[in-house]
Amino acid sequence: MAARKSQTGNYFEDFTLGQKIVHATPRTLTVGDAALYMGLYAPRFAVQSSDAFARSIGYDRAPLDDLLVFHAVFGKTVPDISLNAVANLGYADCRFLRPVYPGDTLNAVSEVIGLKENSNRETGVVYVRSTGFNDRGEPVLEFIRWVMVRKRDKGAPAPTASVPSPPARVAPEQLGSAVPPIRRAAYASHLAGSRDLWGDYEPGERIDHADGMTLEEAEHQMATRLYQNTARVHFNQHTEGQGRFGRRLVYGGVVISIARALSFNGLGNAFHLAAINGGRHVAPSFGGDTIYAWSEILEKAELPGRTDMGALRTRLVALRNRPASGFPLLNAPDKYEEGVVLDLDAWLLIPR
Amino acid sequence: MAARKSQTGNYFEDFTLGQKIVHATPRTLTVGDAALYMGLYAPRFAVQSSDAFARSIGYDRAPLDDLLVFHAVFGKTVPDISLNAVANLGYADCRFLRPVYPGDTLNAVSEVIGLKENSNRETGVVYVRSTGFNDRGEPVLEFIRWVMVRKRDKGAPAPTASVPSPPARVAPEQLGSAVPPIRRAAYASHLAGSRDLWGDYEPGERIDHADGMTLEEAEHQMATRLYQNTARVHFNQHTEGQGRFGRRLVYGGVVISIARALSFNGLGNAFHLAAINGGRHVAPSFGGDTIYAWSEILEKAELPGRTDMGALRTRLVALRNRPASGFPLLNAPDKYEEGVVLDLDAWLLIPR
Amino acid sequence: MAARKSQTGNYFEDFTLGQKIVHATPRTLTVGDAALYMGLYAPRFAVQSSDAFARSIGYDRAPLDDLLVFHAVFGKTVPDISLNAVANLGYADCRFLRPVYPGDTLNAVSEVIGLKENSNRETGVVYVRSTGFNDRGEPVLEFIRWVMVRKRDKGAPAPTASVPSPPARVAPEQLGSAVPPIRRAAYASHLAGSRDLWGDYEPGERIDHADGMTLEEAEHQMATRLYQNTARVHFNQHTEGQGRFGRRLVYGGVVISIARALSFNGLGNAFHLAAINGGRHVAPSFGGDTIYAWSEILEKAELPGRTDMGALRTRLVALRNRPASGFPLLNAPDKYEEGVVLDLDAWLLIPR
Repeated sequence: MAARKSQTGNYFEDFTLGQKIVHATPRTLTVGDAALYMGLYAPRFAVQSSDAFARSIGYDRAPLDDLLVFHAVFGKTVPDISLNAVANLGYADCRFLRPVYPGDTLNAVSEVIGLKENSNRETGVVYVRSTGFNDRGEPVLEFIRWVMVRKRDKGAPAPTASVPSPPARVAPEQLGSAVPPIRRAAYASHLAGSRDLWGDYEPGERIDHADGMTLEEAEHQMATRLYQNTARVHFNQHTEGQGRFGRRLVYGGVVISIARALSFNGLGNAFHLAAINGGRHVAPSFGGDTIYAWSEILEKAELPGRTDMGALRTRLVALRNRPASGFPLLNAPDKYEEGVVLDLDAWLLIPR
Repeated sequence: MAARKSQTGNYFEDFTLGQKIVHATPRTLTVGDAALYMGLYAPRFAVQSSDAFARSIGYDRAPLDDLLVFHAVFGKTVPDISLNAVANLGYADCRFLRPVYPGDTLNAVSEVIGLKENSNRETGVVYVRSTGFNDRGEPVLEFIRWVMVRKRDKGAPAPTASVPSPPARVAPEQLGSAVPPIRRAAYASHLAGSRDLWGDYEPGERIDHADGMTLEEAEHQMATRLYQNTARVHFNQHTEGQGRFGRRLVYGGVVISIARALSFNGLGNAFHLAAINGGRHVAPSFGGDTIYAWSEILEKAELPGRTDMGALRTRLVALRNRPASGFPLLNAPDKYEEGVVLDLDAWLLIPR
Repeated sequence: MAARKSQTGNYFEDFTLGQKIVHATPRTLTVGDAALYMGLYAPRFAVQSSDAFARSIGYDRAPLDDLLVFHAVFGKTVPDISLNAVANLGYADCRFLRPVYPGDTLNAVSEVIGLKENSNRETGVVYVRSTGFNDRGEPVLEFIRWVMVRKRDKGAPAPTASVPSPPARVAPEQLGSAVPPIRRAAYASHLAGSRDLWGDYEPGERIDHADGMTLEEAEHQMATRLYQNTARVHFNQHTEGQGRFGRRLVYGGVVISIARALSFNGLGNAFHLAAINGGRHVAPSFGGDTIYAWSEILEKAELPGRTDMGALRTRLVALRNRPASGFPLLNAPDKYEEGVVLDLDAWLLIPR
């Protein structure tokens, strides 16, 4: 009887194609969360940092950092989707749909859009589309992710394999709904801290974000708790000390947030993360690691019907204990260099 | 002259029976405190996590976590009551009386309700009833605690011994004033993250809360400072490094908060801590420890005149560096097993 | 092309006398920042801790801690002024001009008021007057600082030397504009936690603030990020581990904040830091250090036209890993004793 009430998460055979899961724990994000996010990562994008700046260009007030929203929604999905995950395999088609302001309450719902048992019959891949909603029921964020999940019972029958085909990249016409029309004349780039606007970036350009940030155990734990993410590997040194790495693993989203904050230095006006086309946590990070980052501009796009903002598709690469000079990435096709921990393909919006 | 102005706290002979002490430093708790509390412990009870959820069932907005209120009031009492304490001996008759919302300012007053010098004449036990008030003068929390306090002067005369008899448990009819009448139909247990309501728990049932949380020095220091708790043993490695344990001691309230947050996994709808009947910090905890927890249902009670909520009396046991499987507790009567750090008897309220 | 967009800060030869620099990243400070500041330092001054207390004496609500305002404005100046600094040499003429409340947005502007190349031709001293403004364009803080900055090119021509003469101390008639007229009768010193008012302090008096606070790496990093201070030495163990100290350096402002918070114990009613006459970071501090503090009353002053408040000029001394008993300071003229890390000359306001 005792074990019945504590939750042990879903196993591969608990998922069915088309299943909809309403995730628990609605969460009101506040200026308190924004302050802690600032203390953890020090983003310097003016729009999220200043109510006055945000209002001057057309927001109601400073919106919350896009990644705070992402992590909060992602965190809700963990107890249902990935508590028994062996690996987070990928993200795709992640789109930020509406600004989220302090005081907004977030909920999350996921739909199972693919299932494929692995040949070892011990695990399988679950594909979900997760959506975050505000308390007016409006979607604020949507993303696909796929995770490798353990089976409870090796003998459980395999579902018919069904693998979705997420888009390789979000189309530019799907970008921008989380940014109101910007009063361009009011956008003070000297206050934003960079002169470089959409027209100043070219595909192929690479930017070393220069700074490094050392990550303490207390910091990644506080971040990951702030998102109510319950994945055990981030919090329990007693068990992880005996595990494969001998240490707690840093939630991959913490590395994304650090790299994004570091990217201010070189992309200071690219204040909105509009979409994540795909992402790969190449290697784990640990407390004590120093994270560096660099970006490559992959593509530029106009936004249909908008002249205020343009889109830059960037590859954001994070490294541990290795500076970004020389832009380390691959040794061979699909073989990452030592030190690469994150390879993220994302659309940023930046004033034109 | 120099020493006169810095405060050294009260010694046993400074207390008199019936004495009332108005504690210093009124404190406005805000959404900022709630966010930091979230980052430190990751509670997932929907009522405290979401304004929208809280409003839907009858609150004005998300109330602050009961233990944040407790710690803030407790912290105010420390400079006057326990700065020269050798040991915190116990709590009793702790009742949460009104919801506390972000923006409320808390004050605290204590009355000395018992005094008993120890036979060694070097210390004595001080019993106080402490009450926290909001800025409208309404009591929000009341509790008895007793501490062993040093004498300044061994030769100071002993007071007539007077030992109060706190109730072994708070009576059910005293519970619930901090919870408005709940619109039961609006309480969405799937959003709260658990199907189990009052009727689903039985006395004798034990629940392993499963997860473990490693506690960093920076985390417990930040928590304890957030409560303006000035007890020196939590903050000063320079002196504690030469002390009995060679390390800073973790404020016992931090362990209570971790255990309470972990207890969500198995008691997810028991969103309100209504009373603490008694508590014992069985052993100290330190930075680096991993805390686990389990609960036993001791008793069930209806609340007079209320059909929305019921009460569960639980024993909440926290362990360090030892999982809760097997429900470790006692080796022998009153002899705790290795690893037990907290044994807390509390009333929880949960929808019926 | 790659290096062009990430910022490397100004070098000595980039500054010109009279130059005005509008710093980037406007920042709205909120109750979230106040809560994190509380968690990091635990100040206990009633005015900043309680909206109710602050309103009762004449504020609109609890103002933000003066040092939080200082650090936020200082942080903005770092990317332009001191990213290539070898040393922060001094502060002077720092005056707090208006209360800053949660919700206010801060901007910062600096003017170069002095330049002097060093004889080695590799560095020079830059003197700036920095001003913080709220979003109504009102100055809230002004200070002079001077830093030794590297030259990019040793051969770059030296500017005509120009060295300003900051006042040795701020004149009392310049103090107090950040404190509204106080309703003295409403100021409850028992709630503030100290009986000692302006009349109770005498020049020459020294106060041991008694407590010690150990500083963790995660704490000083979170503090310094909260201020968006980008100085690399505070965050990057990967490079600092190979540097002069083998460790990250703690931002000197963190030590000031700890010492100021500790000074509550002995100066509990001195709730406003009105001016910093001068300050010297005598030696660096590191994660793991325990900070102690003591104060000497240097001078008392009335405030022209005000009978509610008086000024105390204090020397605030912080020590690492050494208690303040005995008031350690100098071994010889201008030679500090082992353990002294901060020597700060400041005006405090305190009710009369």
